Amino acid sequence: MRLALLQPYSHPGDSERQFATLAARARDLAGHADLLVVPELFMTGYRLSAEKLQSLAEPIDGPFARQAEALARETGLAILYGFPERDGAAVYNSVQAFAGDGRRLVHYRKLHLPSDDERAAFATGDVLVTFSFGGFTVAPLICYDVEFPESVRACVQAGADLVIAPTALRRHWSQIAQMMIPVRALESGVFVAYANWAGSEADWDYAGLSCICGPDGQVLARAGADLQVISATLDKAEVPKARARLTYLRDARFRLEGPF
Amino acid sequence: MRLALLQPYSHPGDSERQFATLAARARDLAGHADLLVVPELFMTGYRLSAEKLQSLAEPIDGPFARQAEALARETGLAILYGFPERDGAAVYNSVQAFAGDGRRLVHYRKLHLPSDDERAAFATGDVLVTFSFGGFTVAPLICYDVEFPESVRACVQAGADLVIAPTALRRHWSQIAQMMIPVRALESGVFVAYANWAGSEADWDYAGLSCICGPDGQVLARAGADLQVISATLDKAEVPKARARLTYLRDARFRLEGPF
Repeated sequence: MRLALLQPYSHPGDSERQFATLAARARDLAGHADLLVVPELFMTGYRLSAEKLQSLAEPIDGPFARQAEALARETGLAILYGFPERDGAAVYNSVQAFAGDGRRLVHYRKLHLPSDDERAAFATGDVLVTFSFGGFTVAPLICYDVEFPESVRACVQAGADLVIAPTALRRHWSQIAQMMIPVRALESGVFVAYANWAGSEADWDYAGLSCICGPDGQVLARAGADLQVISATLDKAEVPKARARLTYLRDARFRLEGPF
Repeated sequence: MRLALLQPYSHPGDSERQFATLAARARDLAGHADLLVVPELFMTGYRLSAEKLQSLAEPIDGPFARQAEALARETGLAILYGFPERDGAAVYNSVQAFAGDGRRLVHYRKLHLPSDDERAAFATGDVLVTFSFGGFTVAPLICYDVEFPESVRACVQAGADLVIAPTALRRHWSQIAQMMIPVRALESGVFVAYANWAGSEADWDYAGLSCICGPDGQVLARAGADLQVISATLDKAEVPKARARLTYLRDARFRLEGPF
């Protein structure tokens, strides 16, 4: 599978400009990638007030979703993106993906909300999900979720070969992108893709450092701090090879319960 | 607490020479450290046949233990070391520690055996343990044990502020010492000390790279590849500070059961 991550600048609150960035890159990549991933809350930008995020939130089949679906059909590229999701009175920090034929591949709501800001804006999800794509079983996580080794283990126990985590990671947490993400891949024998923002947004500097890691913990592609597309071709045969070399999943003497 | 790790060369099968290395370094450190840690199976060396390890194994109060206890009394230094432990018909890959007053601080048997070689030589332990030392709650793990995020989480849930892992890590697994150990500290908000062998032993090249990591994932001390003592003064106040900054332990939506 040819996986591409877009590490974009943010135009907070300007979904139209965000979509234009996505559309231009998706058209560039058409025929050269199978799946394009963009960051957490890509639709709106991340660093907005709870009120603003809630007012911009859309249902899973809202106007931005219809644009993304049309873009996937046009380019033949599957597209996975983050957005504030409205569901009745509740708003979630969600991702969803559309296939090149317009089918919805997955919809996931963030399980772990890291800050008072996020807890003011969003309700929490309750389930992990997986979807089939390009011969892989893929599990989406969002930002803080992937910092818990338990989340990745649970995805892998549910069959995942590839974990995809859109994120919004600040520069002073760079050690998470640099060290923790490759270790998540290594310790659970799974590909991990981590798609962050570039540049800065309001009072926040982003770390950039988006990456794609192999199931042996090797970094297959790594972004700098600025706007960038990174990509890698993932070979599913690497997964059983990594798990035969380091048999953590077989040897662990602990069992995981949850999510609760 | 002033913690020192000795990263020694191995003299496989020559416990007397191993003890002489330990004694010389303990005498150097007397008055300058509180706890000295040496690698996995320090007493005998690691890279021996199952038969050899079993024939050299000693009970927890065997001759090497009595020497280590006397050395702790002489130097006033607590000493934690790995050894093949005989208990009736069974042999374990164990660590134990003696305090400066000769008291046994802890005795622990490796939970996760990583290879056919180790499984041929040793029975597995079944429990995690902690001990109090210098105001810290300390949990020993051994080598492969610490590669499981679950092990460190479980130690922390049992109250540990400091995890100490004697190890025997080969050079081609350097990413474990370089990346995984700091991440274990960061993700569970706990000091982690990792004491490896230097140089080579029979057909094995060791990674060296022993380290002491703070609960914020920062490397406080890091060895090279050769014989070396590294040390750091650990401030227990760093632990609640790290756990307030990154609230993983509070926010995880998974529960751990085990060890089984």
